[in-house]
Amino acid sequence: MSGATALRWRPGCLELLDQRALPAAERWLPHSTAAEVAASIRDMVVRGAPAIGITAAYGLALTRWSGEDRAAADRALRASRPTAVNLAWALDRLIGVPDAALAEVAGQLWAEDRAANEAMGAQAAHLLTGGVLTICNTGALATGGHGTALGVVRSARAAGAAVEVFALETRPYLQGARLTAWECARDGIPCTLLTDGMAGALMASGRVHAVIVGCDRVAANGDTANKIGTYGLAVLAQAHGLPFYVAMPTSTLDRATPTAAQIPIESRPADELRRLGGALICPADTPVWNPGFDLTPAKLVTAWLTEHGVWRLPFPAPAA
Amino acid sequence: MSGATALRWRPGCLELLDQRALPAAERWLPHSTAAEVAASIRDMVVRGAPAIGITAAYGLALTRWSGEDRAAADRALRASRPTAVNLAWALDRLIGVPDAALAEVAGQLWAEDRAANEAMGAQAAHLLTGGVLTICNTGALATGGHGTALGVVRSARAAGAAVEVFALETRPYLQGARLTAWECARDGIPCTLLTDGMAGALMASGRVHAVIVGCDRVAANGDTANKIGTYGLAVLAQAHGLPFYVAMPTSTLDRATPTAAQIPIESRPADELRRLGGALICPADTPVWNPGFDLTPAKLVTAWLTEHGVWRLPFPAPAA
Repeated sequence: MSGATALRWRPGCLELLDQRALPAAERWLPHSTAAEVAASIRDMVVRGAPAIGITAAYGLALTRWSGEDRAAADRALRASRPTAVNLAWALDRLIGVPDAALAEVAGQLWAEDRAANEAMGAQAAHLLTGGVLTICNTGALATGGHGTALGVVRSARAAGAAVEVFALETRPYLQGARLTAWECARDGIPCTLLTDGMAGALMASGRVHAVIVGCDRVAANGDTANKIGTYGLAVLAQAHGLPFYVAMPTSTLDRATPTAAQIPIESRPADELRRLGGALICPADTPVWNPGFDLTPAKLVTAWLTEHGVWRLPFPAPAA
Repeated sequence: MSGATALRWRPGCLELLDQRALPAAERWLPHSTAAEVAASIRDMVVRGAPAIGITAAYGLALTRWSGEDRAAADRALRASRPTAVNLAWALDRLIGVPDAALAEVAGQLWAEDRAANEAMGAQAAHLLTGGVLTICNTGALATGGHGTALGVVRSARAAGAAVEVFALETRPYLQGARLTAWECARDGIPCTLLTDGMAGALMASGRVHAVIVGCDRVAANGDTANKIGTYGLAVLAQAHGLPFYVAMPTSTLDRATPTAAQIPIESRPADELRRLGGALICPADTPVWNPGFDLTPAKLVTAWLTEHGVWRLPFPAPAA
């Protein structure tokens, strides 16, 4: 089972499942221009590095119907979020593709991503057993299907392993509570929810045997950008002797970026922290620090799980 | 300046500032029986180990007016929350006190707590400079006034140190956002809000020079129970070479408890995690892990800050 789906395509219309409304409502938003798609990526209607790559590719494909300038659309989509490399990866794959073929190539990227996640799951499933701690959402909603970190869990369970998920709620956007707990409930994966600050105490309790996370960009040296909170988890995992795995479709490996120092980190709006459900949770002018991602040095990562196998450093050279 | 106040007393009536409603509303709730006070402690109208000790003492004092059985009231107040030792500490101080004098002794405990916090601040202020990371609320609202960890910040600033606070929002109850950011804004203390998962990235950024936390119970060997998330902070502080201070009025030191293994940890209701502002943030039947506190081994603590000075292990013998 590949799980939920984040997007639907028909010629001239990209529908995105509004992930901001989950789990209260399953609302599909139609998009008929690349500009609308770029806005929805920025506003996190869709999120997850692989999913936004596929979404951007379909966004560019819409220019055939919308009449938007293709070069301007490409720029807007690339700028919609700065950290994930999959935006550039997907749009680079469309360079030189005739307008009439853009949607078809976007569909190929989608199918490739799903297949890569299933291959990753098959390669890495043997690593997981018992309790597995994860952050954010790395499931079908974050990808073309199946999922990355959550996809490995899915594959391990399909292979009969008694794996259960401990999901950090992942403030401020609550992707763990809203999306991972929802996907797990939908797909019959045992999942216990906890707050981000409980990770250390959970590890000390002996209930988790591994930490597995996704990634938004991995540098050539293995340094990993992922959801804010990932770095702290990696430090805690090391202190508790737990393996720390990064589920990395190779589309998220940026060989052109040497180290974490060259990865831009997105600052998200202050009101994401100040408000919950519209209501202020602190004085209205409270200064806020709200980076969307953090950087985990390669030395804290046990292995990177890819569709080509379980990688350790140095990474294999790119396939010819 | 001692900051906000958590309670008001007049004969036969204890008013508690409803800390659940802050910062949106400053609502005072009157209590005329010990049973009402026990319920308000349990429901977190008032929280913070020193503040609930003082509150429980006034709760017992109300039996003089309410006609409740004093022994039953004592039991109900002691059972209202299990982790903080200050409940027992305060109620033990009232054993043998005549009914007519209970309120007066409760007032003495209140004044002693405020004085202890001011003394702690004076003793420990020299330790702080620059950015200081903290969790939960340890200010005037959590105590009889001035605060413990936040009180040391207050004293350091009063002494001219350029200390600024980084406040973890402290899920699930958001005491950092709702109470610490509010107290800091009210009292002119620079305070930046961040989510609990950002602590590691903040430390890696070099912006904090120390971590300072309160405590709900400290065992004789220095093991420290405090708000869930504290343990992870202590591990992260050690990994970043930052001092980790526990602000501990000696009323919170439980010499009768040898180690953390004997400290009971309160499990809070699942809906504290599942709901925000009444709305579900995950499927309604999502399993939840929601301990209110965690245990930090003494070896991760740089020093315990008390009203008698900065303590390291072994703790000094009790004053005669």
